[in-house]
Amino acid sequence: MERDALKEMLGQVRRGKMTVKAALEKMKHWPVENLPFAAIDHHRGLRQGSPEVIFCPGKETGQIVEIVDRMVEAGENVLATRADREVYNALREKFPEAAYNAAARVLTVVRKKVRTTRGSVLVMTAGTSDIPVAEEAVETLRIFGSRVMKAYDAGVAGLHRLLQHQGKLRRARVLVVVAGMDGVLPSVVGGLTDRPLVAVPTSVGYGAGQGGIAPLLTMLNSCASGIGVVNIDNGFGAAVLAHRINLLGEKRKR
Amino acid sequence: MERDALKEMLGQVRRGKMTVKAALEKMKHWPVENLPFAAIDHHRGLRQGSPEVIFCPGKETGQIVEIVDRMVEAGENVLATRADREVYNALREKFPEAAYNAAARVLTVVRKKVRTTRGSVLVMTAGTSDIPVAEEAVETLRIFGSRVMKAYDAGVAGLHRLLQHQGKLRRARVLVVVAGMDGVLPSVVGGLTDRPLVAVPTSVGYGAGQGGIAPLLTMLNSCASGIGVVNIDNGFGAAVLAHRINLLGEKRKR
Amino acid sequence: MERDALKEMLGQVRRGKMTVKAALEKMKHWPVENLPFAAIDHHRGLRQGSPEVIFCPGKETGQIVEIVDRMVEAGENVLATRADREVYNALREKFPEAAYNAAARVLTVVRKKVRTTRGSVLVMTAGTSDIPVAEEAVETLRIFGSRVMKAYDAGVAGLHRLLQHQGKLRRARVLVVVAGMDGVLPSVVGGLTDRPLVAVPTSVGYGAGQGGIAPLLTMLNSCASGIGVVNIDNGFGAAVLAHRINLLGEKRKR
Amino acid sequence: MERDALKEMLGQVRRGKMTVKAALEKMKHWPVENLPFAAIDHHRGLRQGSPEVIFCPGKETGQIVEIVDRMVEAGENVLATRADREVYNALREKFPEAAYNAAARVLTVVRKKVRTTRGSVLVMTAGTSDIPVAEEAVETLRIFGSRVMKAYDAGVAGLHRLLQHQGKLRRARVLVVVAGMDGVLPSVVGGLTDRPLVAVPTSVGYGAGQGGIAPLLTMLNSCASGIGVVNIDNGFGAAVLAHRINLLGEKRKR
Amino acid sequence: MERDALKEMLGQVRRGKMTVKAALEKMKHWPVENLPFAAIDHHRGLRQGSPEVIFCPGKETGQIVEIVDRMVEAGENVLATRADREVYNALREKFPEAAYNAAARVLTVVRKKVRTTRGSVLVMTAGTSDIPVAEEAVETLRIFGSRVMKAYDAGVAGLHRLLQHQGKLRRARVLVVVAGMDGVLPSVVGGLTDRPLVAVPTSVGYGAGQGGIAPLLTMLNSCASGIGVVNIDNGFGAAVLAHRINLLGEKRKR
Amino acid sequence: MERDALKEMLGQVRRGKMTVKAALEKMKHWPVENLPFAAIDHHRGLRQGSPEVIFCPGKETGQIVEIVDRMVEAGENVLATRADREVYNALREKFPEAAYNAAARVLTVVRKKVRTTRGSVLVMTAGTSDIPVAEEAVETLRIFGSRVMKAYDAGVAGLHRLLQHQGKLRRARVLVVVAGMDGVLPSVVGGLTDRPLVAVPTSVGYGAGQGGIAPLLTMLNSCASGIGVVNIDNGFGAAVLAHRINLLGEKRKR
Amino acid sequence: MERDALKEMLGQVRRGKMTVKAALEKMKHWPVENLPFAAIDHHRGLRQGSPEVIFCPGKETGQIVEIVDRMVEAGENVLATRADREVYNALREKFPEAAYNAAARVLTVVRKKVRTTRGSVLVMTAGTSDIPVAEEAVETLRIFGSRVMKAYDAGVAGLHRLLQHQGKLRRARVLVVVAGMDGVLPSVVGGLTDRPLVAVPTSVGYGAGQGGIAPLLTMLNSCASGIGVVNIDNGFGAAVLAHRINLLGEKRKR
Amino acid sequence: MERDALKEMLGQVRRGKMTVKAALEKMKHWPVENLPFAAIDHHRGLRQGSPEVIFCPGKETGQIVEIVDRMVEAGENVLATRADREVYNALREKFPEAAYNAAARVLTVVRKKVRTTRGSVLVMTAGTSDIPVAEEAVETLRIFGSRVMKAYDAGVAGLHRLLQHQGKLRRARVLVVVAGMDGVLPSVVGGLTDRPLVAVPTSVGYGAGQGGIAPLLTMLNSCASGIGVVNIDNGFGAAVLAHRINLLGEKRKR
Repeated sequence: MERDALKEMLGQVRRGKMTVKAALEKMKHWPVENLPFAAIDHHRGLRQGSPEVIFCPGKETGQIVEIVDRMVEAGENVLATRADREVYNALREKFPEAAYNAAARVLTVVRKKVRTTRGSVLVMTAGTSDIPVAEEAVETLRIFGSRVMKAYDAGVAGLHRLLQHQGKLRRARVLVVVAGMDGVLPSVVGGLTDRPLVAVPTSVGYGAGQGGIAPLLTMLNSCASGIGVVNIDNGFGAAVLAHRINLLGEKRKR
Repeated sequence: MERDALKEMLGQVRRGKMTVKAALEKMKHWPVENLPFAAIDHHRGLRQGSPEVIFCPGKETGQIVEIVDRMVEAGENVLATRADREVYNALREKFPEAAYNAAARVLTVVRKKVRTTRGSVLVMTAGTSDIPVAEEAVETLRIFGSRVMKAYDAGVAGLHRLLQHQGKLRRARVLVVVAGMDGVLPSVVGGLTDRPLVAVPTSVGYGAGQGGIAPLLTMLNSCASGIGVVNIDNGFGAAVLAHRINLLGEKRKR
Repeated sequence: MERDALKEMLGQVRRGKMTVKAALEKMKHWPVENLPFAAIDHHRGLRQGSPEVIFCPGKETGQIVEIVDRMVEAGENVLATRADREVYNALREKFPEAAYNAAARVLTVVRKKVRTTRGSVLVMTAGTSDIPVAEEAVETLRIFGSRVMKAYDAGVAGLHRLLQHQGKLRRARVLVVVAGMDGVLPSVVGGLTDRPLVAVPTSVGYGAGQGGIAPLLTMLNSCASGIGVVNIDNGFGAAVLAHRINLLGEKRKR
Repeated sequence: MERDALKEMLGQVRRGKMTVKAALEKMKHWPVENLPFAAIDHHRGLRQGSPEVIFCPGKETGQIVEIVDRMVEAGENVLATRADREVYNALREKFPEAAYNAAARVLTVVRKKVRTTRGSVLVMTAGTSDIPVAEEAVETLRIFGSRVMKAYDAGVAGLHRLLQHQGKLRRARVLVVVAGMDGVLPSVVGGLTDRPLVAVPTSVGYGAGQGGIAPLLTMLNSCASGIGVVNIDNGFGAAVLAHRINLLGEKRKR
Repeated sequence: MERDALKEMLGQVRRGKMTVKAALEKMKHWPVENLPFAAIDHHRGLRQGSPEVIFCPGKETGQIVEIVDRMVEAGENVLATRADREVYNALREKFPEAAYNAAARVLTVVRKKVRTTRGSVLVMTAGTSDIPVAEEAVETLRIFGSRVMKAYDAGVAGLHRLLQHQGKLRRARVLVVVAGMDGVLPSVVGGLTDRPLVAVPTSVGYGAGQGGIAPLLTMLNSCASGIGVVNIDNGFGAAVLAHRINLLGEKRKR
Repeated sequence: MERDALKEMLGQVRRGKMTVKAALEKMKHWPVENLPFAAIDHHRGLRQGSPEVIFCPGKETGQIVEIVDRMVEAGENVLATRADREVYNALREKFPEAAYNAAARVLTVVRKKVRTTRGSVLVMTAGTSDIPVAEEAVETLRIFGSRVMKAYDAGVAGLHRLLQHQGKLRRARVLVVVAGMDGVLPSVVGGLTDRPLVAVPTSVGYGAGQGGIAPLLTMLNSCASGIGVVNIDNGFGAAVLAHRINLLGEKRKR
Repeated sequence: MERDALKEMLGQVRRGKMTVKAALEKMKHWPVENLPFAAIDHHRGLRQGSPEVIFCPGKETGQIVEIVDRMVEAGENVLATRADREVYNALREKFPEAAYNAAARVLTVVRKKVRTTRGSVLVMTAGTSDIPVAEEAVETLRIFGSRVMKAYDAGVAGLHRLLQHQGKLRRARVLVVVAGMDGVLPSVVGGLTDRPLVAVPTSVGYGAGQGGIAPLLTMLNSCASGIGVVNIDNGFGAAVLAHRINLLGEKRKR
Repeated sequence: MERDALKEMLGQVRRGKMTVKAALEKMKHWPVENLPFAAIDHHRGLRQGSPEVIFCPGKETGQIVEIVDRMVEAGENVLATRADREVYNALREKFPEAAYNAAARVLTVVRKKVRTTRGSVLVMTAGTSDIPVAEEAVETLRIFGSRVMKAYDAGVAGLHRLLQHQGKLRRARVLVVVAGMDGVLPSVVGGLTDRPLVAVPTSVGYGAGQGGIAPLLTMLNSCASGIGVVNIDNGFGAAVLAHRINLLGEKRKR
């Protein structure tokens, strides 16, 4: 709509109904928000294909269903994180293609085919209890379009468990390493690769440093370089970062 | 300069050298930063008379002198906080009107008369060790133009010490209350007034909660309402907030 | 009653039954609490019109109903914060004018017309999850008599979302900015305004710095000046401070 | 039983069956725990009249009933802290004199008359939410034998609320001051008295410093001297300390 | 001076120049601080003999000397804590009776004979590094008038080191127990006595919980009851509390 | 399978189909994970007899039953820690020899006789509430094969309670000392023994340092040497360490 | 040397002196560390061109010079971080090409031409005090071979300061955003870009959350996605991660 | 001396001068500290050969020299930890056999031959900056009599650096693993061994978790079992524990 106001003014200038000085003066007082802000958001155009994302906590089931409804109507794929099964039950009647990853508590509605990268992101976990966070990352990566490899329960306690994944380590373009307890895995993996590595501490553990503080600190202080850390249990954030990195390795045609 | 580019384009539209559509298109790709941003900064005009402020830590004496030099030349009053005496010594040869408040570690160069409010800000401290932080607030308030009253060492240990300042408490428009150790003073003063109160925890103290954490928490948890807290030792920030509040009580003529 | 004792003594002095010296001596030993304390509370008179406030946690429904009862009988408007719906259900039979803001968990009983300020307080939130805290502030501001504007979900992630509220930013006399997660909004808003700004961290978020510590620290360390911070989730406290500031801008007639 | 072994050996020495040297040698190797330890516990004798105390958390109702049973049989008065009503229900059938203070969650069985001190302990609270902790102290003091005065909801927000208790402040021999939120009360009271003061932080409050850390730090950093602090919500511990202090002021006859 | 105003008013009432009602009205508006506050400070009279106390950090040597000067002239004994030797050097020329305890960093000027209690305070330390804090307590106790016993380096590592002080433990009326590192001593001593015990954590130690947090937490969580804790390194505060407790055990004549 | 590839290559070398140099070259590029990793795990062979261990939290009952099933079939004894009774109920139908220690929440299935050490581990607790953690250690020690002695509720508050266990202290080869609240017991026991001591803080306690931080810090800062600390409530970890130490004292035959 | 043992064995197999089975058996027991570990480090070959890196703290000048010496001789470029000028002075005599970035405290010796990427990394800072950390990143990026753009002092307090860098924001392939105080910049920049963003908190600031904790928490809790965080002041680590990401966008020829 | 009193009493019993009952009564009141406490310290006799240990911080050079003097005279070997070179300089004139390990800041005076164990303790460090702490452990182990192996700079960043020490890992009886930064090494080593492992966090590192908190938490939360943790930088404590464990593996003859 602002575009119309601007067009109108330019028309007046063109038609000599408004002097250049007056137009300049008017624009000076034109609040920024009314100017066509395409420039700021221009890159958003490149993101076409990205899903719309809903962070569910603090929203009621009814609200979420409504939001999904509007998004799907707008032709978007939808990703809802930290969603309870109740939300899924409410959705699947209306959207039979809705899928629910119970471990990850992630809900997706995919109607538009997702174009997948050739390079892949390797998602690793130290233990089995870290898998829900890893699965949140996996679901996010997939709906954004990154190819995914998994290496779960690769923990350090038995080094051979880790080393058997060395092939995947070499083939991956980006790594997402998820670990709770002592959070040691990214440090060890970081010593075996020169790929960008996104480390995700989880709230798995107990006692001192519980709630994920221990693995968070371990990762921030890692002796291995090239590690970027996200917040505790933030599989989604790790996936977005990994996907953006992964995209850089794709050829132009994408 | 961007103004010129815009003027030029508008002139072309006016002279029929550019269609409205082309102008619109061009503006769509015009990066935001090149548009005249007066709107965002419009209110800055109201702040005429505000001094320029330099936060000294991490800057070398030479750099500070140079910055002050440029500011004074631009006709501004200058306030430098957390300044060492060495900076003052370097400055006063060039600017004989430079003044240094050693306790507050505040340096001022005032060439343009500061217009003072009729309402006043009362700056209180619990103990004598809190005075440096209070003085930073006082110097800031004065160069911004707020009238200042002081009530130092009004601590709670002897209640009568506080109660003897009750007259000032009633006359002040805004209060800045500075306290270290247990940080109790704002809670008690807050029970005696209905004026806005800015609380400043100081790093005075030792042992548990040292470095100002104890008084900070006390102030955030105050049973008295109407208290806004700033960072530990942040006399400057408290003063800016108190001054902005104080200005609201002034008549329009200011 | 103490008034009577004092009156009696003064009468004795007047009637010559007691010497001035004896009266002085007697008053010297008269415990402070027995003296008429009007002076301390004198300013309370100015606050006429303020509602009585009940902080519900730790009080039983029956107790709250009783307190409200007494207050309403005394002719006061009542504001109860952090109230469960159960309290509302218990109250509305007796007080049909009782109103309940479920999001804010605020309960109000307004029988006496509230006189509203001309200047207004702008209450902003970064996200939708911060709205309950903002609504506590809004309800408090309204019953205290401050005009309110709202700008919810103005978060920084998309800058244009914030900039579209620039008109309100210019019109407001005081700002209350509510944010969880990274708590970035007050810093950004603080760079766009020269009004007093009350920042409210919320407990929205997870992982490191959860429970509101992260946004609290962000706000205390804000690069923007003129920000006063209140405790996490303390919408009520922010509103009281904002209202006191707002009052300063009103003309005398109020 | 050890007593018997010792008696036996001494008898042998007396009867000439064992030399002094052999007895000395034997005792040298006698493990400490087998020696009559009366000396260590000698002062315990002075405590006759003290109740037996049970800290209930982590014990099942059945266990508690059994312990109480044994104690009552031994002729002792019983004090059980942090007891659920369920425990009380289980007990009162057997011990009709069992009493339960629901706010304090304290359960007492008093069969032996408690001798009460002439001096008294004043138990104060800042707010109404601090009363449960205060009541734990009161119940403890009473069963230990200290006379108790109360001054609840004496908080600092309105100074007159505190000052009206000044008479009690002067009459008390020891003070127990209970406060959550900002924990300011002991600092203010400490400025009005020269009696020993035991400060009890409570977990009342929210946001930064929640769980009682804020008032704990306030009390440890108090500008007033002569304050001893106990753990958060530890009304029992405060009472034991206050009682021991109170006893010192009693005449010898006790 | 206020006394004069009050006297004048009473005189007017007596002379019939002012009605009782007018006097009452006038007093109602009389600010509290102008009333004779003897009542609040009445108990201060009992403290005659207490020294004046100076907390030196943050004060310049010149200032301290001046304060001491005024105090000595007023006939008071003086106690200065955390005083550097430089202060002592500056003082002793003027006051030859000035004494300096270098370990405790305590400076005293005693001109008026201190009357000493019959009961005594036992000051214990766990290790030799805790002695400076203990000595601050000892110097404070002595100038306040409490008889002092010492049991230094009584640490728990070798239990016999502690048990050899059992005689003193029985004779003391109050205990001050000073400990850094693990802060275990008060818990163990608390199991051996039924006297009031003031626990002082010290900043002795390193690594996790350094700066005294470890022993502070140990003491607050002590399984032994009857322990009041003061701030880290606060030998002075512990002594004031212990002295107040000790006084309660003295006979009336004192 | 890798074994086959290696065998194949060696066969080619043997048959002269591949030169030694070519084989060397090929192995140089052979990823580590494909080599027979027996060497790394070689010592595992020594551990024959160790049970398989399952940490239950985050695993569903069904999953646990399945894992146990596979382990038992493989002929292993099974230890499941932090197991709910529900798991036990599900298991005992299938495995009648399953045993459940409800306090410790430990579940064991022992089919293969455990060979027991001659030396023993003494497991001590300070209070009764620490027993569940101690029992986790005891169950772990037993199924690993360490002889166990117990000394529960040996807390320091009454020193004689501890000293009566001195015989066990002398007979034990390793000590596991479990304590919550102030965590004092390992420091005191450490002063009475020269055996290796494993200290386990528990989350028993409340207020400051709750969740086990207080005893953890006490133990890390212990004045007694020769103490190794494990995570809060980690009875299992303490037992594994104690068992490994205990094994060192056994003769070779084991 | 291990190579020789392996060669010898293979030779025996080839010469029929050892059966395939025996060779397999022997290798099974061959400790891992004796196998040619090229495979693990194979990817290191890809890193040719990477400099050798020295973290100076805790190393003496002499040691550093010696290490540099060996590296340069081996033909490597050298990067030494957190190096004092003293180290530079000691080095430049021997290596005239040594360069020292005093702000960044980074020392480089570049003898081998560094091949530079076509894509570039944009390094931004919020304030001028964050520049040293940013410069550490810049120096690291350059010697690793990433093209660098800078946008310093782009802080959020004045939004226009940030928006004027929008062109660079669009051209950069990866962003490194450095901020202390409130750490707000990455959140705001993250809302303007869809590039991978590495956030570096700095220890710039004071009071609550000092030492970098405040900006660290802000960044971890950022509402903007796609942000990877490194440790406080870790410009080097951020650069290594950014460089690895940047490399992914380069064409194969590199 | 107490021995004499006891002997005297026994003599009286023997001579019939005192009844058994009277003797029993007398002993009942005999303070514990006066009884022959050999039993408690009996095991100390076993420790013959242990050096005397001095923790230097907080002691003056003169005091330390004096303590060493007395110890050496008593025929003991001496170990002084955290000793400045100044102490060494003062000592070596008097004791030419004094040796100083500058990195470890450990000073030893060995006059009595130390008998060395056959089993050995492996002391590992992650980086070179951790060596001082490791050396404190090494010096302590040697003077207590444990054979020592070293594996320094075995950090995890390059896994091969660790794996090359696998031989030592297999030969050691006990491990002491020292690590700062992320503290990952004990977790990885713990997965490669079944020996008791003592983990020592160091204060090496910066930023979040600095001062050793990060590696401390990592170690406490280690996924590998059988790890005992000591305080940050506590090489001495780790050595004492490791030595006690090591001793258990020695044959009886020692």
